[in-house]
This record gives sequence, C-alpha cells and structure tokens, in this order.
Amino acid sequence: MKYGFSEDVASFHRSPARDLFRKYDLSKMISFAGGYPSPLTFPVEQLKKITSTVLDNYGAQALQYGATEGIIELRQVLAKRSGVDVKNLQITTSSQQAIDLCTRIMIDPGDVILCANPSYLGALQSFYSYRADIQSIDSTDDASLLAERYEKKITALHKANKKIKFIYSIPDFNNPTGETLTLECRKVLVAIAKKYNILILEDCPYREVRFEGEQLPSMYSMDSDVVVQLGSFSKIFAPGIRLGWVIGAEEFLNKLTVCKQSTDLCSPIINQYLAAEYLRSGELDKNLVNSLKLYRHKRDTMLRALEKYMPDGSSWTHPEGGLFIFLYMPEGTSAVDIYEKVLDAGVAYVAGEFFHCDGGGQNTIRLNFSFTPEEKIDKGIQILADCIKG
Amino acid sequence: MKYGFSEDVASFHRSPARDLFRKYDLSKMISFAGGYPSPLTFPVEQLKKITSTVLDNYGAQALQYGATEGIIELRQVLAKRSGVDVKNLQITTSSQQAIDLCTRIMIDPGDVILCANPSYLGALQSFYSYRADIQSIDSTDDASLLAERYEKKITALHKANKKIKFIYSIPDFNNPTGETLTLECRKVLVAIAKKYNILILEDCPYREVRFEGEQLPSMYSMDSDVVVQLGSFSKIFAPGIRLGWVIGAEEFLNKLTVCKQSTDLCSPIINQYLAAEYLRSGELDKNLVNSLKLYRHKRDTMLRALEKYMPDGSSWTHPEGGLFIFLYMPEGTSAVDIYEKVLDAGVAYVAGEFFHCDGGGQNTIRLNFSFTPEEKIDKGIQILADCIKG
Repeated sequence: MKYGFSEDVASFHRSPARDLFRKYDLSKMISFAGGYPSPLTFPVEQLKKITSTVLDNYGAQALQYGATEGIIELRQVLAKRSGVDVKNLQITTSSQQAIDLCTRIMIDPGDVILCANPSYLGALQSFYSYRADIQSIDSTDDASLLAERYEKKITALHKANKKIKFIYSIPDFNNPTGETLTLECRKVLVAIAKKYNILILEDCPYREVRFEGEQLPSMYSMDSDVVVQLGSFSKIFAPGIRLGWVIGAEEFLNKLTVCKQSTDLCSPIINQYLAAEYLRSGELDKNLVNSLKLYRHKRDTMLRALEKYMPDGSSWTHPEGGLFIFLYMPEGTSAVDIYEKVLDAGVAYVAGEFFHCDGGGQNTIRLNFSFTPEEKIDKGIQILADCIKG
Repeated sequence: MKYGFSEDVASFHRSPARDLFRKYDLSKMISFAGGYPSPLTFPVEQLKKITSTVLDNYGAQALQYGATEGIIELRQVLAKRSGVDVKNLQITTSSQQAIDLCTRIMIDPGDVILCANPSYLGALQSFYSYRADIQSIDSTDDASLLAERYEKKITALHKANKKIKFIYSIPDFNNPTGETLTLECRKVLVAIAKKYNILILEDCPYREVRFEGEQLPSMYSMDSDVVVQLGSFSKIFAPGIRLGWVIGAEEFLNKLTVCKQSTDLCSPIINQYLAAEYLRSGELDKNLVNSLKLYRHKRDTMLRALEKYMPDGSSWTHPEGGLFIFLYMPEGTSAVDIYEKVLDAGVAYVAGEFFHCDGGGQNTIRLNFSFTPEEKIDKGIQILADCIKG
C-alpha cells in the first residue's frame, strides 16, 4: 500500500555513518567510530547481586508500572547527588529521550535552535526531525568573541522575525570535539540567555567523566531559571539500561511529564531500581574512579599515537574528559573521501562533517578512544595516518 | 523565564484520572483503576536466575548500546512465535512508544485517525498530542452495520478533503470495554482498509491474555500489507521492563527505525536479553498458563459481585480475556459526579467517558479486575454499587 507519511518524515536524517558501516562487521575492526563506553567499565558481576537485592527489597513493585517522573527512590538519590530539589529532577528513558522531549515541547517547524558548531549528531537528528531551523555558532575559547557571535546572530534572527527557542550546548567534553567550555564562555551564554529570554539546554552526559583538570561550574548552577540540564547513566553505569534525567524548573518539567506520558508512560522501572541501588551502595562512585583511570590511559595512548603518526598539517584536541579526540587533517583532506579506504584497512571512525550543521568540517574526524581495547589504539591510528597520507 | 512552548503542547491531554487520584493513596484503596497486571504474575524469583544467565552468556554486551531495531536474539524468538519474518518485526520501548512512533510518522496536524469508540486513553493522548482529528466510530458486533458506519464516515471525510491516515483498533479484549471484535467485523475493517488504502493500526497488548473461547485470526494475518500490528510484554512478562514490538511492512518499519533513533537510540538492551531468555527457556509460556487461570478466576469473582450488587438498569461486558470489564450504570448516572464519593469510600476506578472521543459514555466505568487482590473484589464492587444507588 501507499503510506501517507507525515511531513516530519521527510526531515528525518538517518545516521549517515550507519548505512556506510552496514557493509562491515565493526566487531572485527579497530573501531574509533561509536560513542561507546569501554565494556570493562560495566559492573557485570555486581549487577547480579544488585538485581537480587532489588528483587528481594521491592519484589513485584520493581516490575510493575510506575510514575512517569521516575521512581522516587532514584529521583531522591540523584537529586541529592546533583544538589537540587527532587521536584526539579525527572527520569527519562536515556538522555536521548530527554533531548527529544525537550525539542518536542519547544519546537514548531521553522523555530530556531542555536547550536555550538560542531555538535552531537543525535541531538541534531532530533532537531532536524521536528524541522527546527538549526543556526550554528562556531565554538571559540574567546568569551568576548563568543558573546559577539551570539549577539550578532540573535539580532539578525530577531530582525527576520524568527522565534529562537533554545541554545543547545555540551559544555563538558563536547561530542565530537572533546573540548570544554571555559568558565568565561559559560558566563557569556547564561548572560545572553537571560538578556534575550532564551532557554539553554545544557547537555551533560560526560560531565562526571573528567580525568584531568578541575570541574567547572555547570550553567545550571549559575542560573536555574534559564537553564535545563540533562544527565545520563550511559557513561557512569551502562548505556544498555537506557536511563537519563532532566533537571529544570517545575513548569518546564510538568510539560515534559505530560509529553513523556504519551511517549512511553514511564521509564523502565527495574532499571531505575538497579540504578538507585548502584548509586546508594556507593559502588557506582567506586567503579567510576577506575573507569576514569582507564579512560585517561587510553586518551594518552591515542594522543601519543597521533603525535607519532599523523602527517604535518594535522592537529587534534586534548580532552580533559569524555570519550573523544577531534582530529583536524591537513586542509583539503576529506574524511568522507577516505572512508572506504580506511574501513577496508580495518579501522572505523565518524567523519566530523556529520556533526557540523553548516556544511563545514570536511577535514575533521571524531575519534573515540574509550571503546577499542587499549592495545589496538596505536595500530589503529597508524593505519588511519597511512590512509590520510595517501 | 517565559518558555515559548510548541503548539503541540496546547493539545497535550494530561490523564484526567491522574490529577484526581493525586489526593489519594491508591495503594491503600481497592483499586479497579489502573490497567495493572497482577503482581502475582511477575516472575520475581525467576528473574534473578535469568539475569545471571544473561550476564554469564552475554557479559558486557548486555549492557552496551545496541541496534535501534532491537537485539537480533529477541527479534528472532518473537518473530518465530508470531509466525513472521524477522525483517518485519522491530522492538520498541513499550507498545506505548510504538503507538507514539506510528502516530508521529503518519500524522500532520488535522489528519484523521478513525478510532473505535471507546478506545484506549493512552493512544488517544498520543493522537491528541500530534493534533490529529480523531473521528470515532461506535463499536458494534453487527458487521454490516460496522461497514456502513465506516463507509459513511470515510465518504464524508473524503468530501471534506480530509486525509485519513489510519484506523486504530484493539480487536482482542478492548481497553476499556473488554470486548472482542468478531471475525466478520475484522474482515470488514480489512476490506475497508484495502478499498480506501488506509492503514490499520492493530493494537494487541492483551491478545495472549485469553482465558475463555477461541483465538480469532488477527487482522495482520488477514492482510500483512494494510495492517501494522503492535505487541507488548507488559501483560505476559511485566510492564516494568517496558518492551513492546511492531510487526509490519519493511518500508513502514524503516521509517519507524529512523524516528526511533532520534527518540531513544535503542530500547533497553539488558531488558531485551532478559525477555529473549524468558521466552527461549519456555518459562514465559509456562507462567502464562497460571496467569490466565488467575485472571479468569478474578473476572468471574467480579462478574458475580456485579450480578449481586449492581442496581437495576445496569449492565456490563463479559470479557473472554484481557484486564477489564466495562460497566454501564443506569442512564442519568455520571461516573465523574460520583468519583469523590467512591474514592472517599475507598474504591478507585476510571470513568468511561475519558475513553470516549465524542463526549459520550458519562454513565460508564472501566473496571480493572487484574490488579486488586481477589478477596477484595467483592467488597469493592459492593461499595461502588452502594455509591451508584446513592
């Protein structure tokens, strides 16, 4: 039959890497592609015990329907950890769902989202799917230049009668660049948001994955009125449990709850009890210390390999946390053009241009250092460098 | 700050019962309200063993990200059970998500959904949220009358240049009525769908919860082209794992996958392995036999109590499966008007009018018989009857 799909469907962006990778068995390759945590960080054995504890303590309640906002046990322990009131925190089925729900309750087709360039592909896909007008603003460490860029863009958009709905930002160890927004730049964003009454969607999936330097204050901590903050269990527990959370004003969360209700009624209940118990017992924090050591080590291994193999004219970021290093190849090199050559040589990555919403970034590559076994990183970077050199 | 919410938000329908119930502690009441399975049917002890088996067999893989379509192990065992090809089956994070995704990829504001009247509230909430034009068609067992009603409605809508996107139907033990669509009525719906090129969304969360009579062929089995079928683990395993599935044509599922990708990337992976193992081991089917016995017993207890206590002029359905009996109080009685009186007396239910999209059904009540302990059903119905009598 001929389906009459909705107009949104034409704006869906299938992950471009996904189709390319379909031809390859990534499990047999050196993959710098996905944003996967190291499997070594997952509490596989502990989870057996935690499951028993949860089922002994809560029984059938852990398998029943539950509140759309999340089970109170998890909200309480997370709120305490985050230093917020429990009424300002709600659980979501992954932080991807949080991004999607926030976009849905804010965006009509044509509404503007201001977005650091480059930005997380999964967020862009959600923005595209609601037919948002994504306006990118190039990242910079220069706070006054950043302020200037935002002021200029906002003024132009207001003149064009555009509705600017929110600023999307990943301040800590950005996906894909691994870079962190400076304190001054955070202050600029919050000041702009207040001045123009624009919400900031502060996406923090990597915030706790800092293995170097000092934690910077979140934008939410600077202003809990204009900022909505998203968190995730994917990098501090495991992605396979699909749990995230939203911190924000009650008025905002109330709309989110009603939207979530018709989306999935509630997030997986047993998973929420598992996360609450894993946090409460202190095991999450104990394991995180080891995960951070592992990630620092793997980052260093990748940085050394880049130094060793990459051709002149290349540069790369030095992330203090998170899962990614961003590689700038010599000008004129295209990450998409060399894809198949590199894949055929056994190495996978994601081209940086997919994270750019302005058509730029052709010579960039996102390198994930968390997933691939450490002993394969050097070899993988050598193969990639050889392909770049031609 | 002043949020500029999207236009969809104004169409969100907060569950009306939800706000009413907020004032009461439902756990201390005799609740016929929620669509909750009996906690006695959940495999609490077995789940400890299943979790260990899954973690031993799959290790970290059970906690990592996975395919948006669902893990192949679960899709295969489900596809085999459903008699379909694995390429025609995809996993969702609850069948509520399946409803929501299907609505999203089909509906633009103003598009028509043809809907049996009354129908599942959670589906209506999703339909409202995308600003669908819900056109209800009163249910009937008379197949030729049903055909007439559909023909008349469709002709009128086509004359008005409306786009009819799909027919929503819960053929087995409808929520809220508990009634089952006859074989002849199923044939009528499929014929209409083919004639007018309108998709049928066949929602089957209760299909396997039949404890009396013979299984009827699904509409999907009659025509796999015009029908998309939804299934759920909530009533045969546990709602707290939040897993459902969609069976349909590849072209349809492809759109659904891209939409799901930006919605939550993938459904909970460990939950999918648990469901696959629970199915594979045969324990799900073994437990289901006992659940059906329990539900039949509880239904009978409620039917007897209704017979004993309800005033003249009342009637009710005789479900052969599912979780609900639908009560028609004497004409002129309003289920909403007596809400607080009944709640104060310790009994909760959901007014039938919330399931009607035409403003009707004031004298109807949805009674869930699966959740409340069997020994409380008689007492609860007596209290309700006393309140109805005034």
